[in-house]
Amino acid sequence: MASSELIRQISRTSASKIVLIAIDGLGGLPLAETGKTELETANTPNLDALAARSVCGLSDPVGAGITPGSAPGHLTLFGYDPVSCLIGRGVLEALGVDFALGPDDVAARGNLCTVDENGLVTDRRAGRVTTEKNQELCRLLDGQEIDGVRIIVRLVKEHRLVVIFRGGGLSAGVNDSDPQQEGVTPKEVTAVEPEAKANRTAAIANQFIARAKAALAAHYPANMVLLRGFSKQPELPTMTEIYKLKPAAIASYPMYRGLARVAGMKVLETGATPEEEAETLKQNFKNHDFFFVHIKATDTAGEDGDFNRKVAVLEEVDRALDKVIGLEPDVIVVTGDHSTPALLKGHSWHPVPVLLYSRWCRPDGVSRFSESACISGGLGRIAATEIMPLAMANALKLDKFGA
Amino acid sequence: MASSELIRQISRTSASKIVLIAIDGLGGLPLAETGKTELETANTPNLDALAARSVCGLSDPVGAGITPGSAPGHLTLFGYDPVSCLIGRGVLEALGVDFALGPDDVAARGNLCTVDENGLVTDRRAGRVTTEKNQELCRLLDGQEIDGVRIIVRLVKEHRLVVIFRGGGLSAGVNDSDPQQEGVTPKEVTAVEPEAKANRTAAIANQFIARAKAALAAHYPANMVLLRGFSKQPELPTMTEIYKLKPAAIASYPMYRGLARVAGMKVLETGATPEEEAETLKQNFKNHDFFFVHIKATDTAGEDGDFNRKVAVLEEVDRALDKVIGLEPDVIVVTGDHSTPALLKGHSWHPVPVLLYSRWCRPDGVSRFSESACISGGLGRIAATEIMPLAMANALKLDKFGA
Repeated sequence: MASSELIRQISRTSASKIVLIAIDGLGGLPLAETGKTELETANTPNLDALAARSVCGLSDPVGAGITPGSAPGHLTLFGYDPVSCLIGRGVLEALGVDFALGPDDVAARGNLCTVDENGLVTDRRAGRVTTEKNQELCRLLDGQEIDGVRIIVRLVKEHRLVVIFRGGGLSAGVNDSDPQQEGVTPKEVTAVEPEAKANRTAAIANQFIARAKAALAAHYPANMVLLRGFSKQPELPTMTEIYKLKPAAIASYPMYRGLARVAGMKVLETGATPEEEAETLKQNFKNHDFFFVHIKATDTAGEDGDFNRKVAVLEEVDRALDKVIGLEPDVIVVTGDHSTPALLKGHSWHPVPVLLYSRWCRPDGVSRFSESACISGGLGRIAATEIMPLAMANALKLDKFGA
Repeated sequence: MASSELIRQISRTSASKIVLIAIDGLGGLPLAETGKTELETANTPNLDALAARSVCGLSDPVGAGITPGSAPGHLTLFGYDPVSCLIGRGVLEALGVDFALGPDDVAARGNLCTVDENGLVTDRRAGRVTTEKNQELCRLLDGQEIDGVRIIVRLVKEHRLVVIFRGGGLSAGVNDSDPQQEGVTPKEVTAVEPEAKANRTAAIANQFIARAKAALAAHYPANMVLLRGFSKQPELPTMTEIYKLKPAAIASYPMYRGLARVAGMKVLETGATPEEEAETLKQNFKNHDFFFVHIKATDTAGEDGDFNRKVAVLEEVDRALDKVIGLEPDVIVVTGDHSTPALLKGHSWHPVPVLLYSRWCRPDGVSRFSESACISGGLGRIAATEIMPLAMANALKLDKFGA
């Protein structure tokens, strides 16, 4: 596969426009009764007609057999190597609440938990404390300063929160305080990197945890906090640096907006339905040359094991596609970040259908956008990191390589 | 492709069971008269029915155009990179006679040969000396000690033997004494690594060769020995370390038993026919969660250029498959380590059919297990190193990668 360094050398700006539609959890598995997946069950005339004018295939987000989380699933679609560009849990939680992380911020995922009089964790989720109570406690913990480091605490949901350590040049090279089991004490945060910065992070984190314990003492069962996944935002080259694009993201869920920001995209305000997202695309179409359009509801339906709802969302996407096609983008890619078969009720390793339309694609015999039809597509089975170079090429945004 | 380091991070134990059936030299070439390969000629109702419930494809053991030896062909099936995990000739011969190599043993392949009065090699195979005579000479050479290093000599077959240098912390970084041609003198063994250990190996090997020459003087034409392929067992992580499996091998030929041991498998006692191997699987099914079942006779028939015998063995495998399916393993993979077309009378570079059955595979339209049918399978054309991650995923033994 061509490296992003190579792509950076040969990419060029042009007037052409690329729309990348990422249908979250797109791939599925067939029902025993019908032998058809969600996508094969859905009535998708627009996708099918587009497939007939496109080159199709199947893509592996991370590698054969690997079930990707949301972060690697999306970074790979943007053309980043998902293994070397791993995003830590703390950063992902911060992105997920739309928190604008700075390059030096260290973020950690927090759990409110319960400890007994001996300091042993008796419930890692503090009896699934309510979001409202958590909000109250986050306000209690937020805004402290320890040794020149500002500590920002933000609610996520239920017992989950995120802690950001800002300033003071901290390193994220420390281990979790979360012991990942009950009946033991929380772990002391210690440096895993042999450098002074990590020691300082550990000292400050431990001080924060001690203060939090004191502040939460009266709030049983949420009388302690566990931290894990200390991480900084990865230093990725932006999509503008690699592809010379002016990229924009149309996504309603905070985490995907955050991931788009990590890749250097401008995040547009939008409604959440496919129809509303298509309208956002239309309104902003002249201002950008690359659009990442994220559809969340397919993944949610898959995770819920709701085959029929996933089918219905796919049909909704198909209807909204009409408006996208009407804008006449030079390149349209329709794919997903991974499969989420309703039968498995979760992300899976199965390859994801991909369709690439452009005036310059070499169409194949595929006239139906589905898992089984895409097997015989002209793209074959590709790594998801190859999608961006293919989109760029089809937009005539890549120069010839070599003399 | 996902690295074994990544797989190691996300693998987990579970009750599910994987059976990997490696039909040695599986792939073939079509006869001009029928247009059908060995596999396409064979009557294989069980394989075909299983293919219809499986995802199929073609795999390249090492890379496009590369004809693998038995060692890389198998290591790649176990998920090891066949290029970086190369096994030396000496080690392979030791494995082939079921010799239990220690981690510090240096092994070299030996040839009995003929030298004339001037010390020039006149026959690199000593007139194809008989196995019985070789056995007698091996006893003569075996069991010496030179400078604290014990020297073990084992018969292989005809003029072939293996010499193991045990103890004394030797390095394998020395060149061959075998000049690979006649009419010249054997080469002096010299260090190719600039370290004292390699110099010591060279000195001891040369002393052994001098002693052998003296001991063999009266045994013309087998009056000298040539050594090549000095090597140590590669330090591979075991399949238990990578996959957290409790793996077992069902193979009757020593070399494959040895390769399985290198990968950390327990080698089970078994009969040699497919039917007997299936019975061994049945008897041991509850004790392991991964089984490598090796079928040798297909490769032998291919090497002999015996198209019809290869067809017959494949039909035998098909009948034995019934018993395997009856055990209801969670994942069944049927493939080969490489192709051995009877028309070529040897290993070849052609991709190998692969079938992966599990409850969670996404079946394709393939309903015949054959080279031509597998072209349009849902796996597409994969690297053989991807087979283990796919088997693990389908056994639900891999956690999600990344947040």
